Amino acid sequence: MTDFLRRAADLDAADPIAPFAAEFHVPDGLIYLDGNSLGLMPTRVPARVAETATGEWAEGLIRSWTSAGWFTMPMTVGDRIAPLIGASAGEVAVGDSTSVNLFKGLAAALHLRPGRHVVLADGANFPTDVYMAQGLADLVPGTTVRYLEPGQPVSSGLGDDVAVLLLSHVDYRTARVRDMAAVTADVHARGALVLWDLSHTTGAVACDLPAADADMAVGCTYKYLNGGPGAPAFMWVHPRHHEALRQPLSGWMGHAAPFDFTRGYAPAAGARRLVCGTPQVLSLAALDEALAVWALVDLPALYAKSRAMTSFFVEAVETRCGHHGVTLISPREPAERGSHVSFDYAHGYEVVQALIARGVIGDFRAPAAMRFGFAPLYLSFTQVARAVAHLADVLDTRAWDDPRFRVRAVVT
Amino acid sequence: MTDFLRRAADLDAADPIAPFAAEFHVPDGLIYLDGNSLGLMPTRVPARVAETATGEWAEGLIRSWTSAGWFTMPMTVGDRIAPLIGASAGEVAVGDSTSVNLFKGLAAALHLRPGRHVVLADGANFPTDVYMAQGLADLVPGTTVRYLEPGQPVSSGLGDDVAVLLLSHVDYRTARVRDMAAVTADVHARGALVLWDLSHTTGAVACDLPAADADMAVGCTYKYLNGGPGAPAFMWVHPRHHEALRQPLSGWMGHAAPFDFTRGYAPAAGARRLVCGTPQVLSLAALDEALAVWALVDLPALYAKSRAMTSFFVEAVETRCGHHGVTLISPREPAERGSHVSFDYAHGYEVVQALIARGVIGDFRAPAAMRFGFAPLYLSFTQVARAVAHLADVLDTRAWDDPRFRVRAVVT
Repeated sequence: MTDFLRRAADLDAADPIAPFAAEFHVPDGLIYLDGNSLGLMPTRVPARVAETATGEWAEGLIRSWTSAGWFTMPMTVGDRIAPLIGASAGEVAVGDSTSVNLFKGLAAALHLRPGRHVVLADGANFPTDVYMAQGLADLVPGTTVRYLEPGQPVSSGLGDDVAVLLLSHVDYRTARVRDMAAVTADVHARGALVLWDLSHTTGAVACDLPAADADMAVGCTYKYLNGGPGAPAFMWVHPRHHEALRQPLSGWMGHAAPFDFTRGYAPAAGARRLVCGTPQVLSLAALDEALAVWALVDLPALYAKSRAMTSFFVEAVETRCGHHGVTLISPREPAERGSHVSFDYAHGYEVVQALIARGVIGDFRAPAAMRFGFAPLYLSFTQVARAVAHLADVLDTRAWDDPRFRVRAVVT
Repeated sequence: MTDFLRRAADLDAADPIAPFAAEFHVPDGLIYLDGNSLGLMPTRVPARVAETATGEWAEGLIRSWTSAGWFTMPMTVGDRIAPLIGASAGEVAVGDSTSVNLFKGLAAALHLRPGRHVVLADGANFPTDVYMAQGLADLVPGTTVRYLEPGQPVSSGLGDDVAVLLLSHVDYRTARVRDMAAVTADVHARGALVLWDLSHTTGAVACDLPAADADMAVGCTYKYLNGGPGAPAFMWVHPRHHEALRQPLSGWMGHAAPFDFTRGYAPAAGARRLVCGTPQVLSLAALDEALAVWALVDLPALYAKSRAMTSFFVEAVETRCGHHGVTLISPREPAERGSHVSFDYAHGYEVVQALIARGVIGDFRAPAAMRFGFAPLYLSFTQVARAVAHLADVLDTRAWDDPRFRVRAVVT
């Protein structure tokens, strides 16, 4: 293991992204490999949230909707995300949850592709993606959800009845990356649209939606974007669809003239029609502040670090723990892999609990995946090497074989 | 005017609710008659939000979903609202926006009343209510929205085709209060359901949903509940509907077992199935803290204060400003009136701007309503008397007749 620690020190010394770690609060002694679930808190966030509460809200009150820019925040915060997904200013709307935005996108696709009534969804998608598709299908008679089974090529699910393909760019369990341009081309050749879920992409994996000719995308901001627990989600729609775009969550904040108080809904121009109700300003302000750092980040260097770090982890785990029967379920090829790595292990749940008890935070995804996330913006190779040392020790000593690590919370 | 100020002092001295004003931050010199749009900040909120950020998020990280109760907050925060609407613990879910919750409710009603395809909506509802109904109707073929025109009795709009009536308990312009029990009985007699919007009710006007045999309700928490800008909304469904209740925004947080990661959506028991995606925790924590005070409030006394205060305002305005042609559009009878009062005036927009410039914050609602809100939890009669003195002066001196008060922001 000394060898991996030495190599880690060298990699850290050469890491151009390393200085950004100082922007985050790291709890004492913690090795946090769960930034793909909830990112660390940027140290600048508390002051911003305090100012939003005690300045903008308490002093400015209702006037802050204009004077503090609350009304325009769904779009101005979106402008900070745009460069991370290849989008332009004004194209990204922020608000609601990823789930709600999935609903908007799927429903909008049904409207854009009349006569087609199938949502084709990766059956291995994160559950909320398929649940939202099911909710839409239950609501709109004739609409059905068709699933792609693991390993089934996208093209085999397509047909003249498919309105939209719902796919995660990076798989939440395995981290497998879809070829966005190739899939989109296949989908378009069959007359359908594609809605990408970028929850495990943005802030860690390269993504250029317009270059891939994508139609729509939604994403999460509380993972690699560090916006805070449950931070509002984002949504992008290709400008070619803006004019015809209709989404059913047509709340007043997406109206062309919200304060005319007219009876008929008239969508705002462009992506602003994706906004629905009144934004949750405190959470939105925290996200806005968390996003400020991204303008300074060398994105190609960040993505290269992600690939180098996950490769380093795979090599170290297989070298030190392979004989215990841990099985890599993430792609071995870095270009096919997002920024997390999963190993299946029969006692994976207990191992993850034993690691958490030691201050090494990863997570477990049923049925057997030990999942470790590598947020390249703040994680060091040395932390990764130390985490592997803990993992090896937990396995070598069977420290996981302890009743307290078998307790499963109803909600974990 | 001296007479009204003297009377105000007496009323304040006898006001059992007066001590709660100390719980709120009031900007220096401001008379805030817009708590029906965005409530004042409770002084205890900033410390709670700071703890949520620097303690629960920054230190607890992903563990706080269980250890800090983030997962259960949509329901535990709802439990704080329940007593204000006559509901029981476990019946109120908090999250998303009022707009999104309206969509859930209307869609759920279509499901509960198969074969009925009309949403009957008050055409004078707050715009987002009718916009959400329109969005649902555009999405679900065969569904239509029928409007009640001003003054039209509810019964005349009902028919065997109506699945649900969407109505505000307190009208956002006029403050007219609907008779919840009587309307609900009419609606039930015709086989339909009723979805109440309580945005201008909760925290200022008496409401007992089960006593009125209501079916569903949604409401806003950033007005009289002081939850902060865009604070998450609440939703209630009568327990008799829980078993059959299906709502289309079926996100993973409303799943019976969110971490089993099963492909099929299975709704959680009871009102938790109203929860959709991951809650915006910072905003939810602020709301939770803001709601703590309500357990201490004598609600009948609060509602009596609201009626007394609006009556006092009406009398003072008509006495001092009646000759200028301001016209009361709110009900004169206190029992028929919510906690705000609107006067139509030809130059209402400019008058409201002139008042704002003097530190008296009300708002304007097209086409001509000067709207003044009276949050009984923190407002004093003396402030009300002073506000009327300013209004009288603005009208007497034509201070409103100034170019700077005619400028209308694109979004105000």
